[in-house]
Amino acid sequence: MVIKVHGSLFTACTSRVLACLHEMELDYEIVPIDFSSQAHKQQPYLSLNPFGQAPALEDDNITLFESRAITRYLARKYKDTGTDLLRLNNLTEAAIVETWMEVESHHYDGPISTIVRQILINPYFGRVSDEKIIQIEVEKLVKVLDVYEERLSKFKYLAGDHFSMADLHHIAYTVLFMKTPKSNLITSRPHLNAWWNDISSRPKLIKVVNGLMFRDLGSLNILSKK
Amino acid sequence: MVIKVHGSLFTACTSRVLACLHEMELDYEIVPIDFSSQAHKQQPYLSLNPFGQAPALEDDNITLFESRAITRYLARKYKDTGTDLLRLNNLTEAAIVETWMEVESHHYDGPISTIVRQILINPYFGRVSDEKIIQIEVEKLVKVLDVYEERLSKFKYLAGDHFSMADLHHIAYTVLFMKTPKSNLITSRPHLNAWWNDISSRPKLIKVVNGLMFRDLGSLNILSKK
Ligand SMILES: N[C@@H](CCC(=O)N[C@@H](CS)C(=O)NCC(=O)O)C(=O)O
Ligand SMILES: N[C@@H](CCC(=O)N[C@@H](CS)C(=O)NCC(=O)O)C(=O)O
Repeated sequence: MVIKVHGSLFTACTSRVLACLHEMELDYEIVPIDFSSQAHKQQPYLSLNPFGQAPALEDDNITLFESRAITRYLARKYKDTGTDLLRLNNLTEAAIVETWMEVESHHYDGPISTIVRQILINPYFGRVSDEKIIQIEVEKLVKVLDVYEERLSKFKYLAGDHFSMADLHHIAYTVLFMKTPKSNLITSRPHLNAWWNDISSRPKLIKVVNGLMFRDLGSLNILSKK
Repeated sequence: MVIKVHGSLFTACTSRVLACLHEMELDYEIVPIDFSSQAHKQQPYLSLNPFGQAPALEDDNITLFESRAITRYLARKYKDTGTDLLRLNNLTEAAIVETWMEVESHHYDGPISTIVRQILINPYFGRVSDEKIIQIEVEKLVKVLDVYEERLSKFKYLAGDHFSMADLHHIAYTVLFMKTPKSNLITSRPHLNAWWNDISSRPKLIKVVNGLMFRDLGSLNILSKK
């Protein structure tokens, strides 16, 4: 059975999974969710993801949700294919990859997704952006980016000198962030900027990056509910 | 070398790691962080965790931070000791454990830690609790708990009929939450309540649970910075 990804090419969380599939050179099929009819908040979709969000995965006899659980599963199941994203054969390397994956989850994702929502998504849907929220989240993000800049002055990638899942998990929201006027927070930090240029131009990922960049923002209505 | 945990027995994030160590029956030593002198925001601690937070781990030649990266590392490195928390020998079971670990990270941790901070920690430090924030986070938490109640009506634990890392990661903040007037959100849901009674009374974990319950709130000043 071919891997099925329920979601949309145009939402960040789905794209996180797609980036992993492309990097691992795995075939897949997208099962589009009809967000406009709120299909994701109803059965049968809720059986795939009880939180009613994209993405969800079907592969052989398993269905999964949560983008980062899906990427971990793919990297383990297909560990002999494509890039070795989790470094499973080396306990120390794997632990460092996991650490920076957790950093993405607990330090980066919150501020960056909120900034993207406020600056890009809200105006598109005719809602006002809240300047105060943007300011608070930018302050948080700056602290995180300072840590990244220091880290990336020592290593080419977040988990060491190899591209890993930790880097990959950053791509989706950063593509969107780079389209906001706050992108200078990344371009002004030389190591961070070099890292971003490197990971966002990986040949295997270019389709996913472009899918997010040139999308029809209308497909983003999924994000509008937050 | 004995495993060293930098942190405090009395903070939720450190306790998440301690719960894992106890469940796995591993010996460890706590290296207390002097939060009152802001030691966690200075060298040498910043070399262990560049975000200046508890906990950090030292084991053999590795140092790690982020509580959930640490627990994953421990479960892999010492996989023949104590409870099998990640189900590493079964790809499907492991993926379901990871899914519910991600649910804890991305759905549960945010609201519950904010509620605990607002209701328990703020007043202790003479700061006003923000009723509006509490209300918003309670609304988010209720939706999450409804999903848990449904899930736990089908399975004894979040990832299936075995206790796993997914359950374990919930313990630290839930112990604190149960000391707030919002604890009825858990006790009023029968399956959730049975699950909580079960996991919080596991003999191997009782010391960690009691450490959090009967602590001197003064040790919590670490949380006050948020
Ligand atoms: N932690 C989840 C987040 C999923 C999520 O927020 N998905 C968004 C799209 S990026 C969504 O479906 N939003 C619609 C909604 O929440 O109603 C994951 O990583 O999979
Ligand atoms: N995502 C991190 C969170 C760490 C964290 O927030 N630690 C708190 C204690 S629970 C802390 O050290 N706070 C002090 C501060 O942020 O200055 C983890 O799970 O390890």
